[in-house]
Amino acid sequence: MKKRLLLVSNSTLHGSGYLDHCQQHISHFFGKDVKRVLFVPYALHDRDAYTKAARDKFKTLGYEVDGIHEASDPVDAVRKAEGIFIGGGNTFRLLKSLYDNKVVTEIRRRVIEDGVPYMGSSAGTNVATVSINTTNDMPIVYPPSFSAIGLVPFNINPHYLDPDPTSRHMGESREQRITQYHEEAETPRVLALREGSLLLVEADKATLLGTTGARLFTRGKTAVEYEPGSDLSFLLTH
Amino acid sequence: MKKRLLLVSNSTLHGSGYLDHCQQHISHFFGKDVKRVLFVPYALHDRDAYTKAARDKFKTLGYEVDGIHEASDPVDAVRKAEGIFIGGGNTFRLLKSLYDNKVVTEIRRRVIEDGVPYMGSSAGTNVATVSINTTNDMPIVYPPSFSAIGLVPFNINPHYLDPDPTSRHMGESREQRITQYHEEAETPRVLALREGSLLLVEADKATLLGTTGARLFTRGKTAVEYEPGSDLSFLLTH
Repeated sequence: MKKRLLLVSNSTLHGSGYLDHCQQHISHFFGKDVKRVLFVPYALHDRDAYTKAARDKFKTLGYEVDGIHEASDPVDAVRKAEGIFIGGGNTFRLLKSLYDNKVVTEIRRRVIEDGVPYMGSSAGTNVATVSINTTNDMPIVYPPSFSAIGLVPFNINPHYLDPDPTSRHMGESREQRITQYHEEAETPRVLALREGSLLLVEADKATLLGTTGARLFTRGKTAVEYEPGSDLSFLLTH
Repeated sequence: MKKRLLLVSNSTLHGSGYLDHCQQHISHFFGKDVKRVLFVPYALHDRDAYTKAARDKFKTLGYEVDGIHEASDPVDAVRKAEGIFIGGGNTFRLLKSLYDNKVVTEIRRRVIEDGVPYMGSSAGTNVATVSINTTNDMPIVYPPSFSAIGLVPFNINPHYLDPDPTSRHMGESREQRITQYHEEAETPRVLALREGSLLLVEADKATLLGTTGARLFTRGKTAVEYEPGSDLSFLLTH
């Protein structure tokens, strides 16, 4: 089976509704074979309300949605899933819940071995990578590890913001934060996805989709800009 | 002995130099009795360069600076310190280094039992509180715990930014992030210090200093605004 991932920077783009900006990509990604998508709402506090929002949206695209928290056995729900969508929110809460519910390994196995399509948005994109070391979120809970599901051999920074030369705020820019990350040893590449960008992975091919482009940060090298449509398959090799 | 803390939101205010905006408070805080300040540069990668910057600034205020990383035994350096200053940078790197060097307990003991004055800036302010759960930094390394030195019974969010109604960015506002924190159980109050604000603690008295005010976020309650000069001593009671 071939690995299939749709990694979205952000679920909602300014001025449009939930997942509107990427709905054609979602339909194309899950296609006609998938009827039901397993939704993982762990990143938000109100899991029922979050699942309802996802369910309502996916209904308009022709898919049924099951909330993983509605299943008596979440590992079994992953085992039976036709497709998986992990929504955004707080990355620390999400990763801790994935570990607490013991589904990290099973999600990895289903996606890598069984070719179950995996869609992530924001925090759900962070947890698909090597680690959550490049999330923007506040560390509101302490997960047992920062290691994530590891479906790709690099990290992503979603909601990437370019430095604002007019800002008077003295907190670090996103670029400075990623540079700090790369000051540490053995850190993988970081693909910074602006809001409106998404990455499609199909087996050994990775393509940058959306409208806003991405920036690739590699330890010890100058950052490189990529336009929408770029072939980023080289990221899939270590 | 009485506990004495100077907790600064940010080391550099837009348009001025390192620690310029709070230098009079620093001089008043360390006073005439302290001659040497132990500087903890763990939050930045280049500890020597960071210590030189702190040394140069403190020299102009009449204090000598020793870098904790220059000492052969950091715990002993804390044991002998007349005053402590923990600088800003990345909070995760800072807290991990404090644990790696086994100085968390000794710093707490010196400040609480011996009355050694403690100054923190940004990440150095975060680690003075209950936990680093309300830092803004990227989790570039995994510390053994998010629990911090615990010199006060609440948390702080430094570099606090008010929501920007004109922003088109869809990442969470700082207020939304703190609300997510308070969705978790047993979370302490969060004092959000805008850039230009600092908190002075002397025994059982806490005073908000600086020019920009602060916002207090309490679980289940509406946030409350405090003007510079406010008496925040109630924060020191559990």
